[in-house]
Amino acid sequence: MLNITLPDGSVRPVESGTTGHALANSISEGLARNALAVRVNGEVRDLYRPFTEDATVEILTWNDAAGKSTYWHSSAHLMAEALEALYPGVKLAIGPAIENGFYYDVDLGEGRSISSEDFPEIEKKMLELAKQKNRYVRQEISKADAIAYFTEKQDPYKLELLENLEDGQITFYTQGSFTDLCRGPHIPDTSTIKAAKLMNVAGAYWRGDEKNKQLTRLYGITFPKAKDLTEYLERLEEAKRRDHRKLGKELKLFAFSEKVGAGLPLWLPKGTALRERLEQFLRKAQVKAGYQPVVTPHIGSKELYVTSGHYEKYGADSFQPIKTPNPGEEFFLKPMNCPHHCEIYKTEPRSYRDLPVRYAEFGTVYRYEQSGELHGLTRVRGFTQDDAHIFCRPDQVKDEFKKVIDLVLYVFKNLGFEDYTAQISLRDPANKVKYIGSDENWALAESAIQEAAAEKGLSTTTELGEAAFYGPKLDFMVRDALGRRWQLGTIQVDYNLPERFDLEYVASDNTKQRPVMLHRAPFGSLERFVAVLIEHCAGNFPLWLTPEQFIVLPISDKYIDYANEVKAQLEQRELRGTVDARDERIGRKIRDAEMGKIPYLLVVGEKEAQDNIISVRKHGEGDLGSMPLDAFVKSVQSQIVEAY
Amino acid sequence: MLNITLPDGSVRPVESGTTGHALANSISEGLARNALAVRVNGEVRDLYRPFTEDATVEILTWNDAAGKSTYWHSSAHLMAEALEALYPGVKLAIGPAIENGFYYDVDLGEGRSISSEDFPEIEKKMLELAKQKNRYVRQEISKADAIAYFTEKQDPYKLELLENLEDGQITFYTQGSFTDLCRGPHIPDTSTIKAAKLMNVAGAYWRGDEKNKQLTRLYGITFPKAKDLTEYLERLEEAKRRDHRKLGKELKLFAFSEKVGAGLPLWLPKGTALRERLEQFLRKAQVKAGYQPVVTPHIGSKELYVTSGHYEKYGADSFQPIKTPNPGEEFFLKPMNCPHHCEIYKTEPRSYRDLPVRYAEFGTVYRYEQSGELHGLTRVRGFTQDDAHIFCRPDQVKDEFKKVIDLVLYVFKNLGFEDYTAQISLRDPANKVKYIGSDENWALAESAIQEAAAEKGLSTTTELGEAAFYGPKLDFMVRDALGRRWQLGTIQVDYNLPERFDLEYVASDNTKQRPVMLHRAPFGSLERFVAVLIEHCAGNFPLWLTPEQFIVLPISDKYIDYANEVKAQLEQRELRGTVDARDERIGRKIRDAEMGKIPYLLVVGEKEAQDNIISVRKHGEGDLGSMPLDAFVKSVQSQIVEAY
Repeated sequence: MLNITLPDGSVRPVESGTTGHALANSISEGLARNALAVRVNGEVRDLYRPFTEDATVEILTWNDAAGKSTYWHSSAHLMAEALEALYPGVKLAIGPAIENGFYYDVDLGEGRSISSEDFPEIEKKMLELAKQKNRYVRQEISKADAIAYFTEKQDPYKLELLENLEDGQITFYTQGSFTDLCRGPHIPDTSTIKAAKLMNVAGAYWRGDEKNKQLTRLYGITFPKAKDLTEYLERLEEAKRRDHRKLGKELKLFAFSEKVGAGLPLWLPKGTALRERLEQFLRKAQVKAGYQPVVTPHIGSKELYVTSGHYEKYGADSFQPIKTPNPGEEFFLKPMNCPHHCEIYKTEPRSYRDLPVRYAEFGTVYRYEQSGELHGLTRVRGFTQDDAHIFCRPDQVKDEFKKVIDLVLYVFKNLGFEDYTAQISLRDPANKVKYIGSDENWALAESAIQEAAAEKGLSTTTELGEAAFYGPKLDFMVRDALGRRWQLGTIQVDYNLPERFDLEYVASDNTKQRPVMLHRAPFGSLERFVAVLIEHCAGNFPLWLTPEQFIVLPISDKYIDYANEVKAQLEQRELRGTVDARDERIGRKIRDAEMGKIPYLLVVGEKEAQDNIISVRKHGEGDLGSMPLDAFVKSVQSQIVEAY
Repeated sequence: MLNITLPDGSVRPVESGTTGHALANSISEGLARNALAVRVNGEVRDLYRPFTEDATVEILTWNDAAGKSTYWHSSAHLMAEALEALYPGVKLAIGPAIENGFYYDVDLGEGRSISSEDFPEIEKKMLELAKQKNRYVRQEISKADAIAYFTEKQDPYKLELLENLEDGQITFYTQGSFTDLCRGPHIPDTSTIKAAKLMNVAGAYWRGDEKNKQLTRLYGITFPKAKDLTEYLERLEEAKRRDHRKLGKELKLFAFSEKVGAGLPLWLPKGTALRERLEQFLRKAQVKAGYQPVVTPHIGSKELYVTSGHYEKYGADSFQPIKTPNPGEEFFLKPMNCPHHCEIYKTEPRSYRDLPVRYAEFGTVYRYEQSGELHGLTRVRGFTQDDAHIFCRPDQVKDEFKKVIDLVLYVFKNLGFEDYTAQISLRDPANKVKYIGSDENWALAESAIQEAAAEKGLSTTTELGEAAFYGPKLDFMVRDALGRRWQLGTIQVDYNLPERFDLEYVASDNTKQRPVMLHRAPFGSLERFVAVLIEHCAGNFPLWLTPEQFIVLPISDKYIDYANEVKAQLEQRELRGTVDARDERIGRKIRDAEMGKIPYLLVVGEKEAQDNIISVRKHGEGDLGSMPLDAFVKSVQSQIVEAY
């Protein structure tokens, strides 16, 4: 008999040789039906592989990332089977699961190619094969037999892969008429693959080396329900519509210039208004929470980074040092603000009564990214962190964490992120030597984080061994309107920099002590946050934040004066907007304003001017009718969350 | 007969051989008494040198910079005469006038030295000699005779100087028993030197080369009235007390760190509050004036600076380029914001109706300065310009100038700079080829500036030939509380960058035209402006600007709660301040708050807590008595200029 420990901690005795499927069945018939694979002591395996020793076991379904990944890997094999049927003699290279679906790199042979017009036929063949409910059968095979198999099949890629595999470690997987060299694991059979879609075709060099032959990479995705595929494609379309690079251009928020340099955003007036309002919103909340804004330069001398330890990490893949006329003198673009803030901490002696000291800076930092990795505002070479560093006593860590959690949740609430979780990263208790800081302080900080999160009612997961070497941390994950997850907001304990910078305070017993340092950034970076926000709200920013809350549209030149008067009156009541005084027809003006996602369109013509009223259209909702300015202001103000 | 043109444009016929003194006398006896030298066709000369041709002539007095400089140069000769009397055999090197006074580098000979204890004796001797009313007599001398004279005198320094002089160009000046090799000019005689003070003694290498012998440099200053010296010394003491480096430290406004790097200020919380309030003040005024804030990165690629023309000016004396892993790719720390703003202008097509476009950015720029030239916040390696660039049509230049003048004067008014003038720099009409831009545009812009300045009632001087090659400009000079002049605020026309960046707009006739670009910065840089402001107001910032407007001082621990309540209530009324909750005696708290230059000290004890009042002390003025909070708030608010 074996002892199988389940995720809820319960232990189930089973006979040796029991499979994951049988175990699932013993838990619930539904679970067995949905089971795709099984995680045994951390390793994902086939559902039908028998247990041979005591283990911690988790049944994986479509709802688990590892379950999905196994499913898509099996789908890659299914696509390969379909390709062999449709393109006889096709040679297969590699076919892994990816974040959304899978791909297979294939060599179609001289003169053959695949275009998107061929996709439906392949999809059809895949579903036809899937319906056969073929089992994915695992087979351990000797290296000699494996080589013999692929030699006969004349597949040079698999043969090359085999060269690097060790005899005794090699497995084949077969479903239907298709056999692949594969480590696995796989799903039980093809019957759960109910929807298939080829997404894209691209060129890819064998083993990523441009000296090698170029293969055809086919991207696909599959789902257990047809409805899931439909939803996925809709979400993809919506994501394209919401792409912050597209909306950023249309709404004139930001731009890039080749001359300035890739990955270095230029914030246009509307984007700057948005960005400054975000900064102002957080600055106000931070000052209220006891933070002190500081300003530091964007460069620091080599000595600063030798002290902080960053110097030895600057490699050939970074921005190189800035030399000066003074031989030996070198500066670096700052990759983070903490070393500068440590130097500010050191400008005066500190007592235990002075702590916590909280320095906040919207600090622009520079980090070199390969140009291929740059992506809109989410991956840039220069970005502004909403950074702050809290220097406190060890006994203050919990309280400071609670305050930062409050701040992060305040940010999420006012920006419409309602779905979030937090991950607590603690050190690996089995490997304490790789962390800096005393056992006592780690214990204090780790329980402080856990208690703070619990007291604030956060929904958290805890990961052992995920802490940085310099301290434990708490990261926030938000789910956006399209269901995508983004890491936003982080709070980290740091025992390293206080040590390296020799930071001190005089304790109540007159001894010199090291403060604990906390790094935290609710937005993370303004650039990335704005990108996520644009895609989350599709450019329809919260009313308090949006660059222009209204636009006045005179139906002809005759009413421009009245339009300007309306604007002036609204500005006096702290609303922001403009007048569209162009010589265009009203229909065009309305269309452009809708495109610009301006929340309120105020149409004014003869009647409005005469009666001192406005005709209000709300973006995406249409006509709200005529009303006096006062009524409009009241209605708008009541909607503005008092964030700003 | 010669025609002498006076500064007022009038022409006076005089006989050839007439001296400046005689001319002055013919104008007024007072002018002749005060005349120190004369400027003839731009060259400063001795007052008694005869005119030999038609000329434009200006009589120079103590009130002219060139008059003062001549006076101090003559005083250097007087000091040398005194030194020869007191230190026989002293060898003399060079003795020029400087900004405030003069120095003489002397070789006292083996075993002799001068310390500040010797100053009174030298000063006494100088005044004794001055009273002799010795004339400064000019003598043209042959090189051979000059060499013979200094050979006999055994002065190696003068002999070395003579080596590089051309025969026929050599003059001696003699007063009393002292003769010096000197180009002149000098004042008529020593009698106007009524007060003398030696300021400092220092080492200085002959010809500034550390391989040469070290000489003794004696700094001195003289005045025509004893009272002037007293005032000067008082002003000097006051300037020391107001030194922004000293006050910046005492008031905890900013700091420098060797590790971060020399010339790279760290703005501490109070300095940041000041700086951000200044920014906010200007930002608000700018938005009202139609500026659009933008944000650009602190680096730009080589291509940007090749286009702007700055690349070829980057020399070995600059911050060197930032290389990247990508061979050939280079970035530069931005030395100005204009190229980035040009790229923003180019992000969309512009019509004549869209202009002017005004982009504003508090842009931090970096320029390498030799470490010896760094000085507090006035000379730094990283500073934030309150920069903006206006892109307009040529016909809009005058209006834009008027608006910028309004803005600059608004800044001066709200920051207490009441004494200012402006300099208009135009091109040299005799040398038009060295300027870029069409004649027509220059004529338009130059008259636009002059008319704008006149219409705004500015007191201006106009300098021909002082324009930049790219356009004319207007610079503001303010006089601070110590009478020192600072250049603050500049408005410049630029025809160059629009050309280099190929900027365009579509004119009303559908042709493509170049916009004119204006650079302007009312503060100049935040760093330099804050330095000047600190010294101007001695750290007593305007009430609307000062980081802390009040501090509540509980006379003991018992009243901390009430103190906090007072603070909270004042904060609700938009006043800023803190509570001094330290366990210190009230006398100490008051002293520290006065040192911190906090405008209002609110003392609270039993009586105050009971009656719900506060006892108010005003910085530098003392006790204002007890009053309810409301009365205090009212009084303070009425004083706050509604700038912010």
